[in-house]
Amino acid sequence: MAQKPSIPKGTRDFSPEEMAKRNYIFNTIREVYKSYGFREIETPAMENLSTLTGKYGEEGDKLLFRILNSGDSLKDFDRNELLTITPTEFAARACDRGLRYDLTVPFARFVVQHKNELTFPFKRYQIQPVWRADRPQKGRYREFFQCDADVIGSDSLLHEIELIQIIDKVFGRLGIRVSILINNRKLLTAIGQVIGAEDKIVDLTIAIDKLDKIGWDGVHQELLAKGFTEGAIASLKPILELSGTNTDKLTTLEESLKSSEVGMKGIEELRYIMRKLDLIPLQNEVKLDLSLARGLNYYTGAIFEVKALDVQIGSITGGGRYDDLTGVFGEKGMSGVGISFGADRIFDVLNTLDLYPEETKGGSRLMFVNFGEKEEEYILPLLYKIREANIAAELYPESVKMKKQMNYADQLSIPYVAFIGADEMANNTITIKDMKTGEQKSYTFEELITLLRG
Amino acid sequence: MAQKPSIPKGTRDFSPEEMAKRNYIFNTIREVYKSYGFREIETPAMENLSTLTGKYGEEGDKLLFRILNSGDSLKDFDRNELLTITPTEFAARACDRGLRYDLTVPFARFVVQHKNELTFPFKRYQIQPVWRADRPQKGRYREFFQCDADVIGSDSLLHEIELIQIIDKVFGRLGIRVSILINNRKLLTAIGQVIGAEDKIVDLTIAIDKLDKIGWDGVHQELLAKGFTEGAIASLKPILELSGTNTDKLTTLEESLKSSEVGMKGIEELRYIMRKLDLIPLQNEVKLDLSLARGLNYYTGAIFEVKALDVQIGSITGGGRYDDLTGVFGEKGMSGVGISFGADRIFDVLNTLDLYPEETKGGSRLMFVNFGEKEEEYILPLLYKIREANIAAELYPESVKMKKQMNYADQLSIPYVAFIGADEMANNTITIKDMKTGEQKSYTFEELITLLRG
Repeated sequence: MAQKPSIPKGTRDFSPEEMAKRNYIFNTIREVYKSYGFREIETPAMENLSTLTGKYGEEGDKLLFRILNSGDSLKDFDRNELLTITPTEFAARACDRGLRYDLTVPFARFVVQHKNELTFPFKRYQIQPVWRADRPQKGRYREFFQCDADVIGSDSLLHEIELIQIIDKVFGRLGIRVSILINNRKLLTAIGQVIGAEDKIVDLTIAIDKLDKIGWDGVHQELLAKGFTEGAIASLKPILELSGTNTDKLTTLEESLKSSEVGMKGIEELRYIMRKLDLIPLQNEVKLDLSLARGLNYYTGAIFEVKALDVQIGSITGGGRYDDLTGVFGEKGMSGVGISFGADRIFDVLNTLDLYPEETKGGSRLMFVNFGEKEEEYILPLLYKIREANIAAELYPESVKMKKQMNYADQLSIPYVAFIGADEMANNTITIKDMKTGEQKSYTFEELITLLRG
Repeated sequence: MAQKPSIPKGTRDFSPEEMAKRNYIFNTIREVYKSYGFREIETPAMENLSTLTGKYGEEGDKLLFRILNSGDSLKDFDRNELLTITPTEFAARACDRGLRYDLTVPFARFVVQHKNELTFPFKRYQIQPVWRADRPQKGRYREFFQCDADVIGSDSLLHEIELIQIIDKVFGRLGIRVSILINNRKLLTAIGQVIGAEDKIVDLTIAIDKLDKIGWDGVHQELLAKGFTEGAIASLKPILELSGTNTDKLTTLEESLKSSEVGMKGIEELRYIMRKLDLIPLQNEVKLDLSLARGLNYYTGAIFEVKALDVQIGSITGGGRYDDLTGVFGEKGMSGVGISFGADRIFDVLNTLDLYPEETKGGSRLMFVNFGEKEEEYILPLLYKIREANIAAELYPESVKMKKQMNYADQLSIPYVAFIGADEMANNTITIKDMKTGEQKSYTFEELITLLRG
């Protein structure tokens, strides 16, 4: 009955080494979120399909993992129907629940469902896996983790400022040099107005969002296909390619967009954010990028994206302001702003740049070699005291050959190995081998604790 | 288009307050596991159904959540089949994946799949949700968390000793007084032999496991129904009801079970564990309980269970030794031993006994009242420094009515509120209101940091 075991395509096991690295990333993000007053929530892996469907476009609906109803999943069907039913309709009726696709829609659902228990503005963070039935490929998984922070119920631009500080602080602590790109959807709307394509703002946004991938020629082609005039496209180009300092860009834009009220509002917001950021120490550059669009339709104000400077990889963090996230659940006019760290890409960046600190290795700091029952009984109370000092330590569980025991310590990168034999028991000392240098030295228990803490 | 949002039956949202409490439990368990040299792994939420089915009995198979295959889930069926297919066969063929039902089977799968990358004995812990399509009821959820630690690839009884220490330490740190019950499956086997029911060990175990719920009369009835003789049942009762110290019980048992080799082995194992535990400080009593059986069939040696002394609730932790967990995946002879903390019940116990420490509340330590833009600009750099000191703090995002701002701090149980107006800016001071006492006092920035750290 033996099966060769495997896991579903696009999913991953995380080894102790990988978990230690991932926890380092999650804990860094968590600590920064917390220091800004964000509080954690979790939502269930399964949501009702009525919560999920229609929120991610037609393509998104296809990528939802659906849970077959328990018990007799066919009981609600007239069997004859099954001869002709479409797969889509079948799935819709045989499944009431699906796995969450992102953290944003469950968060909107949470806010509406619990609004009477919440205090607004509500600042929450959430670090959980999401699932998408996407075609797996390098760096794209069917189960992956999102690390979101959002503030809902406040229009204040202070939140934009704090989210930028959070981004700066997280990457500062991780040691990743980044460029924090910022734009404002209001400017994109104004550009649409000014080039005479006010009715095609969504097409414009989607096309600009692809600039990185398909280049200006590609964007040009796409805009033509969507019915933009050559004149409109020609007047778009210099705006997207504005250079100079953030202040230079805003000054030029103010002139080009002066006929647009919403454009002036966008410029005012950006100036406010930049002015406040000047008061605070930042480690990374915040750069106004007019070609930053972000695909999602619900953004209405500031939008952010983060690029790593030392590794070629897509955006590693993104976010923005939305004026109505909860409307679809019957709660209108809740403005919010949020960011999401891409944990999997950050993991790759840290690996590429080899930036994990030594402590990330985790595991025991010390292993006692096992020489037999008498030594075991001597060691157990010592081990107890070491662990009470919050130091991870272990005793090899069997008195097998020394080579096997040392090999275990070596494989697990345990930095110190302790030997206690008859001499050590008589003298109340512990012989310690430093596994890096190979040096061996005698310690008292107190000296050992100091060594392990160091 | 508004929907009234809800979540699937048997699932839960966790509010910031609940998350803080849950993280306190998980972190306590995690810290103790780590100090004993256990290392964390995670496995995907979805497993292939071939990994899951047949591992939890027929009843368990019915409780698996199955994921409908993506795309056209009916494509592998001849439509005419669907007229007569059984729901079970349909589910089996329309679904390749399911949600994990526990952490034990995925762990066994993990060990076999990655055995060439692992160093044995492999000590892992895992804290993740599991899903069961059980009928939801008070305290029973369809999504709940397990916190498992297992050692695999070692027969050493030192692991049993360390797992008992871990249990003792976790409940010690949480402040829950418990009784740690221990037994050995070998004794149950020996009892079966001695009462002449060697062929019915499984029935015997299952019946004894229910003693708590159905009492001795119930067990008696069940054993009769399973074909045990009145004589066998009569000779069972005094053994299960043995009283006295652990040593007394073992001495009596040694006499009653002396004809059974496996019984003598079980007694030897228990004596060894007890002797070693005597060398180590324990906060809770470890009690030999011969009526402890644990339902799961894979246990072969020591078994554990933990009862809270001050709250009426079922077992809050359990575990045991198994000789062959990975055999079903083609890897024979891997002995292991493990425990699992019942996080949801521990959560309830801590709530009932009101044992959460003050820090568990989480959230900001300080809120600055917002008096307007000038004050904001003065406060932002201060706030930056406070957060750099790893203290969670926030500025109310809008200069709205004082009452609304104070209400926010109050609702979020923020212990200190800071006021900075013209006077404070001129004097370089900060006026702080202690929200518990209502007292107001002037601080320098350095004094404030000291206060917030305290």
